[in-house]
Amino acid sequence: MKEKLLIIGGVAAGLAAAMEARRRSSEAEITVLERTGDISYGACGLPYVIGGLIPSLDRLVLHTPDYFSDRHDIKVQLETDVQEILPAKSVVRAREKTEAREFGYTRLVIATGAAAICPPLPGHDLEGVLVMRHLRDGRRALDFLERRRPQRAVVVGAGYIGLEMAEAFQTRGLPTTIIESSDQVMSTLGGSLRDRVVDELRSHNVEIIFGEKVVGFEGAGSNPVERVVTETGRTLEAGIVNIGVGVRPNAELARDAGIELGESGAIRTDAQMRTSVANIFAAGDCCEVLHRVSGRSVWVPLGQPAVKQGWVAGANLSEDRTLERYAGVVGTNVVKVFDLEVGRTGLSEAEAREAGFDAFSIESETASRAGYYPGGSKILTRLVVDRNGRLLGAQMVGREGVAQRIDVYAAALYASLKVEEIERFDLAYAPPYAPTIDPILRAAHKARHP
Amino acid sequence: MKEKLLIIGGVAAGLAAAMEARRRSSEAEITVLERTGDISYGACGLPYVIGGLIPSLDRLVLHTPDYFSDRHDIKVQLETDVQEILPAKSVVRAREKTEAREFGYTRLVIATGAAAICPPLPGHDLEGVLVMRHLRDGRRALDFLERRRPQRAVVVGAGYIGLEMAEAFQTRGLPTTIIESSDQVMSTLGGSLRDRVVDELRSHNVEIIFGEKVVGFEGAGSNPVERVVTETGRTLEAGIVNIGVGVRPNAELARDAGIELGESGAIRTDAQMRTSVANIFAAGDCCEVLHRVSGRSVWVPLGQPAVKQGWVAGANLSEDRTLERYAGVVGTNVVKVFDLEVGRTGLSEAEAREAGFDAFSIESETASRAGYYPGGSKILTRLVVDRNGRLLGAQMVGREGVAQRIDVYAAALYASLKVEEIERFDLAYAPPYAPTIDPILRAAHKARHP
Repeated sequence: MKEKLLIIGGVAAGLAAAMEARRRSSEAEITVLERTGDISYGACGLPYVIGGLIPSLDRLVLHTPDYFSDRHDIKVQLETDVQEILPAKSVVRAREKTEAREFGYTRLVIATGAAAICPPLPGHDLEGVLVMRHLRDGRRALDFLERRRPQRAVVVGAGYIGLEMAEAFQTRGLPTTIIESSDQVMSTLGGSLRDRVVDELRSHNVEIIFGEKVVGFEGAGSNPVERVVTETGRTLEAGIVNIGVGVRPNAELARDAGIELGESGAIRTDAQMRTSVANIFAAGDCCEVLHRVSGRSVWVPLGQPAVKQGWVAGANLSEDRTLERYAGVVGTNVVKVFDLEVGRTGLSEAEAREAGFDAFSIESETASRAGYYPGGSKILTRLVVDRNGRLLGAQMVGREGVAQRIDVYAAALYASLKVEEIERFDLAYAPPYAPTIDPILRAAHKARHP
Repeated sequence: MKEKLLIIGGVAAGLAAAMEARRRSSEAEITVLERTGDISYGACGLPYVIGGLIPSLDRLVLHTPDYFSDRHDIKVQLETDVQEILPAKSVVRAREKTEAREFGYTRLVIATGAAAICPPLPGHDLEGVLVMRHLRDGRRALDFLERRRPQRAVVVGAGYIGLEMAEAFQTRGLPTTIIESSDQVMSTLGGSLRDRVVDELRSHNVEIIFGEKVVGFEGAGSNPVERVVTETGRTLEAGIVNIGVGVRPNAELARDAGIELGESGAIRTDAQMRTSVANIFAAGDCCEVLHRVSGRSVWVPLGQPAVKQGWVAGANLSEDRTLERYAGVVGTNVVKVFDLEVGRTGLSEAEAREAGFDAFSIESETASRAGYYPGGSKILTRLVVDRNGRLLGAQMVGREGVAQRIDVYAAALYASLKVEEIERFDLAYAPPYAPTIDPILRAAHKARHP
């Protein structure tokens, strides 16, 4: 019997799965069902199109459906909204525009991604109150910006998308305010690292308010949004609002099909990216995977893990599979905030405690270049360590050299190293790139002798 | 009996040892003997002073002798040239200017560093034929450049100092030619990675000639150098010549004292930085240490390992020592060549074969940023891998993001990881800093499926 491989979702994880499945099998019939009219785009680039750095949304699109069908014999069905998965029949029911369709499968990959959360506050449906997740969100925002020419922006939430959107609005010339209900940025960055980010935002005329919840949005009649209202009664003028309070996994289809979900509400997977139901895999922002530091099943919706999970699922779809395994995440992420690189990996101190570690943190500040070499700046590092010296997490903020240095800690977390081992790393040194003793080594040294 | 700790050499390793010894013992008498009039300077900054980027040699000096004596009760004897170590008597004989002196010790650290090699070719002693190693070499070069205003420069050797000096001369406005007897740059970089470096040099009007040996230097009478002559009879006009053909360990003192040297001619040390003679330690560019990849004792004279070895030696000098261990090197280094970052770690393919590995290499080229994000460029990576998949070495060339990415491989080498493990690293992704799948992951993937 011919393998019929079906994939729900045509962005990062879904297409990675399709391509890897094809690489492993030239015979299989491979079909990708995509709910929207867009596939194969880099959603992470959206803030940079909004900000004007990238001239058009088209630039974010990597490949067309024709590329997949002509070059790789992968059929892509656009605007095909899956309504139901019937595992007992190995069938998926969908609507293609108005038409009901059924797709049979021998193996299925659920790569339905995540959706931006838009809390149902009064006025959340006013024109100009936007989320930023899919290509169509970008289209909507650009259209609104050009048509209505708003004069001020408010960003709700200081997660990485909120920070990027604030920079985007400010770069377009809109005075911008971020409002964040916690006292942290990027969910986990507090204290002096957060302060460094706040200084950077303020020096670029982005205001940020911590510890205050938004309770609604106001506008006159059918006009677009005009104000954001907070729990203290404060009102912020806003010609456009971006809601960046987080995302939730698109896991309803899986749940309704009897597939087990994890505590986060995302689909549980094993190391082969299999779900609890035979012949059904999941990959990307809709599923949970192993966190290598905490040992727990976690939901970390990010692009690079999504693609890698797609590869593993795709490889394991083929008949002569070698059972590829996904190694899990350590929670690495980086964001640009104007001229600042803000990175994190592993667990924050609070996350580490919550996961049962006897954790402590140390902070250290070190130059990014040799002291005498012009143009250097300070890198602020916070390491989270358990009492026997094992590294649990790292956060870094600096004007250069952070985005890749955080990866050195990510490598150390992968290998479950102690800070005394990290202190012994033989790292590259040249005056333009690092001081003789790299910030990574200095921080590890300090964590070893706190 | 009061501990008398004596340290020969007042730059990186020597001062690191002195400071760490003081940190561990407030009681010990600590003396540093320095042959020249300079201590505590960043020799790696010399090319940038020559090039004019750093306005004065003074900027390279970190601390004065007074700082060490007043703040840390460490006595520094300048211009004190050690003539002999007498282990049987625990005494060192030196000349302080014209005066003979003896220094007793309970424990001794040899941190005599390395000397630039100046091959005894005809004309090597002409004025304007220079090496670049110590602060006084920098003074001599600056004095010569200002006094004689040479119009052309030749650099002999395309090691990292040769490359940095070529950039320095060119930055001062001197047309420069590098002549290198091998077909590689940085000792180990061949093929397309070397070509990338050559392109960068040529685009900045630095010429480079490979595979040709220099046989002498010519000048008229007592005038400075005017020409460099090669084995093919080629003559290159040269108002100033920098010899950057390598360094040799300053190990004669140790050898004459009966201390065991390694095959390289540098001092053999164990993991505690002890030499073969009781109570005598060595650290820095004069000694051999463990190479963690080859398992051999190697001589890798570089600043960061030198400081770390100094710390270990200094810690182990104190009476209540906990026997700190030096973990060895993996051979990491990076150099700036105009707008290019050139990094290496571990073994080259030739070095790996020579060390007995069944090694192969793969090359991969990947964007430094998301494809749609402006300003990106290509990173060229070569990985050296043994047949069971263990990473043995990595070399990278690119316009950004190399200097720290090479450290991720250095971390992987520290932990003896396989390329399939590196491929599973959870690395930071944001469009300005990396493509979704980082060059590190791409190269590891390719090395796994060559």
